[in-house]
Amino acid sequence: MRVEIVAVGTELLLGQIADTNSAWLGEHLAAAGVSSHFHQAVGDNQSRIVLALRTALARSDAVITCGGLGPTHDDITREAIAEVLNVPLRRDEAVVEAIRAMFSSRGREMPDANLRQADVPEGAAIIPQTMGTAPGLICPVGAKVLYAVPGVPYEMSDMFTRAILPDLEARMRANGERTGTIASRVLRTWGMSESGLADVLAGRIAELDEEAGAGGTDGAGGTDGAGAGGREGERGATTIAFLASGIEGIKVRVTVRAPDDRTAAARLDVEEATIRSILAVDGRDIVFGVDDEAIEDAVARVLHDRRWTLGLAESLTGGLVGSRLANVPGANSWFRGGVISYASEVKFDVLGVHPGPVVCETAAAQMAEGARRILRADVGLSLTGVAGPASQDGKPPGTVFIGLALGEAPAEVTELTVPGDRQRIRQYATISALDLLRRRVGALPVGGPPGAPGLGG
Amino acid sequence: MRVEIVAVGTELLLGQIADTNSAWLGEHLAAAGVSSHFHQAVGDNQSRIVLALRTALARSDAVITCGGLGPTHDDITREAIAEVLNVPLRRDEAVVEAIRAMFSSRGREMPDANLRQADVPEGAAIIPQTMGTAPGLICPVGAKVLYAVPGVPYEMSDMFTRAILPDLEARMRANGERTGTIASRVLRTWGMSESGLADVLAGRIAELDEEAGAGGTDGAGGTDGAGAGGREGERGATTIAFLASGIEGIKVRVTVRAPDDRTAAARLDVEEATIRSILAVDGRDIVFGVDDEAIEDAVARVLHDRRWTLGLAESLTGGLVGSRLANVPGANSWFRGGVISYASEVKFDVLGVHPGPVVCETAAAQMAEGARRILRADVGLSLTGVAGPASQDGKPPGTVFIGLALGEAPAEVTELTVPGDRQRIRQYATISALDLLRRRVGALPVGGPPGAPGLGG
Repeated sequence: MRVEIVAVGTELLLGQIADTNSAWLGEHLAAAGVSSHFHQAVGDNQSRIVLALRTALARSDAVITCGGLGPTHDDITREAIAEVLNVPLRRDEAVVEAIRAMFSSRGREMPDANLRQADVPEGAAIIPQTMGTAPGLICPVGAKVLYAVPGVPYEMSDMFTRAILPDLEARMRANGERTGTIASRVLRTWGMSESGLADVLAGRIAELDEEAGAGGTDGAGGTDGAGAGGREGERGATTIAFLASGIEGIKVRVTVRAPDDRTAAARLDVEEATIRSILAVDGRDIVFGVDDEAIEDAVARVLHDRRWTLGLAESLTGGLVGSRLANVPGANSWFRGGVISYASEVKFDVLGVHPGPVVCETAAAQMAEGARRILRADVGLSLTGVAGPASQDGKPPGTVFIGLALGEAPAEVTELTVPGDRQRIRQYATISALDLLRRRVGALPVGGPPGAPGLGG
Repeated sequence: MRVEIVAVGTELLLGQIADTNSAWLGEHLAAAGVSSHFHQAVGDNQSRIVLALRTALARSDAVITCGGLGPTHDDITREAIAEVLNVPLRRDEAVVEAIRAMFSSRGREMPDANLRQADVPEGAAIIPQTMGTAPGLICPVGAKVLYAVPGVPYEMSDMFTRAILPDLEARMRANGERTGTIASRVLRTWGMSESGLADVLAGRIAELDEEAGAGGTDGAGGTDGAGAGGREGERGATTIAFLASGIEGIKVRVTVRAPDDRTAAARLDVEEATIRSILAVDGRDIVFGVDDEAIEDAVARVLHDRRWTLGLAESLTGGLVGSRLANVPGANSWFRGGVISYASEVKFDVLGVHPGPVVCETAAAQMAEGARRILRADVGLSLTGVAGPASQDGKPPGTVFIGLALGEAPAEVTELTVPGDRQRIRQYATISALDLLRRRVGALPVGGPPGAPGLGG
């Protein structure tokens, strides 16, 4: 089953908006073990949409179009599909009534423009709408199928999960391609490069390949060539793939096949535990979260578990660390706030740093202790460094000192050199500091005060 | 001249990375008045890349491929192009030496894997590389042309600007399609919706359409259908288009055609002035920057021009305002820093806010005055409000108070209601506060102290 995605909308070709729908669909198809070999984007022009759809139907088994189902005269996906299928459009009165009801529930009349959203190519089924006014479409084309969903991301993702993926899986089972379910879980890591992770997990990946047997590398789903590390989708295999996550670290995605959801979840639990134990060798602690958890969620968890509060002193990062922590729901139970001591005098006057160089270990320590004191927090975290492009206090751009004050104990300071331009240096410093905090606090027992004798340093 | 973009890379189909290259190319082609009617993405598989390229060459006049020019065995764009062109690959010894020199300049040996990056399809020209190791390719295909560039964004954009766009423009001139140059300028606005801007500028757009005469709507470049507002690309016309910029406001893009660059720049100046005067009616001040300037750059400019310094007090935004200001090069000349007073007690203890409700006008005023005092700044800016999902102090999510203390004058407070979820509310509050600061400070004379009698309030 090869799926092609056709994104409809002139604004996509003009780069006015990012095509997030195609990426979302590609990712979720892959996680469900379904291949997607081509994507297209085409503008709001009927003859070109028809050409794109015919191209897709010639080379793929199933096509998903997003966009062009709105009520305006630019929304012509329905007309294009009818032309490709060589059938008329029929206005579905039940759909008209459903759209009318959506408007009246908001105290409004349905404009006549919305009537076209109830036009359905003869022979197609609708995917009932729950959020927007346009229903989706499931259009059989001989042995193939063409799905159409709105371009609004949450409407697209809802209809995919609710109707398209189950329909694809039913077709794959009918073909003998799919005899169970596929589930994935992502372990989010920070502190090791993608090639480093690939090396450490090479042995496990080789074991899994052996278990898969002679499945070949271009199986019922997933990548071909060497792709992104790990060979996904081989028949019957548990597979591991690596996904770079911008500057947020490397994601390790485990995908399992099983007869049903419960067995799949159990297999994911086993593989997650196996991978975590491999990654923990030599005292490493690089897995900070699962699936959508960000590093600030891990920080929130370790502080909340210990009932400790946190105060910040930020210099080069300018508030970036605080803004990430404030993102976490319930931050007010552990986040006191911070001092953005951008100017040197603010470090001296407000935080009590001794006048002198500000990009050094001593300043970082005094900033962390000062933040803890001023903000009346259990833990103080500080960052000082050089974002560039100029050097400062004789230190080159990329120099970063992170101070951590745990209770009354003298602050510990870590020095790093981070790569990139000004913006990248600030982002790397932020994530490095949050990860250091996570690991250091996470290593301390729950139920004691921070920095008690024997627990600090 | 219809250009098609083919992005090569399995990670694109799997949604592991966003396809920013296609969006960038589409936007920059449009800004140069060149149509792009189809985009494709395909994985690292030679037969599928060949199929995608043949599809593109059948329906488009020029094709730009990005990706697959690296040194690994997954990088097969060169082989695919050679197959499509039905020519052998020849190893260009001058390119080998150039790559070898890049490695030795970093004190390293060139690995043998990089030799393949010097393979050139017979009949093609190279685009010399300046940043990465792979040269680009310009491959004539009969009357058509196939360009290949690396997938690394800054390498792609450099080769496009330096080599591809000039080549396309030369071809268009040779066809009689292009007899001059096209240039664009973007005015960045905040404070008016896209439909509001379209209304206000409707008269000007109509005048420009009349000047364009009977050019039709599907001209030598740009959109068709109604696209994104404004009809770009009609022959000889100055055109105006609206681009939503996420939450950063609406961009108004002016595109002019002229015989040469100098005349084009002069026409842009005239149209920019015209649009600014239309948008300034009724005392509005909604244009904050031009092209890539962000709102924090406008804030930096108004403070720097007056030699005033700024201190912040942030609550719900958690440091987001500070982190944006710290992004601006040279911020240390006007940005003192801030207090992230996330916990209420920090507002009382550190900023001197009177104990009591913290989401109200009085608290915002005291926070702004306190920040100015503590950080020894000329101007204090504060934000307090409710990010949600819970209400606070009886105020619903989306309630935001912005305080502005100019010199010794009592702080002015503005109350807003902003839409969205927790994250969206914090981002809107940030931009609204920066815009308010920009407008209020920008309205004061240069050379006076902030908040002097007659200038405040």
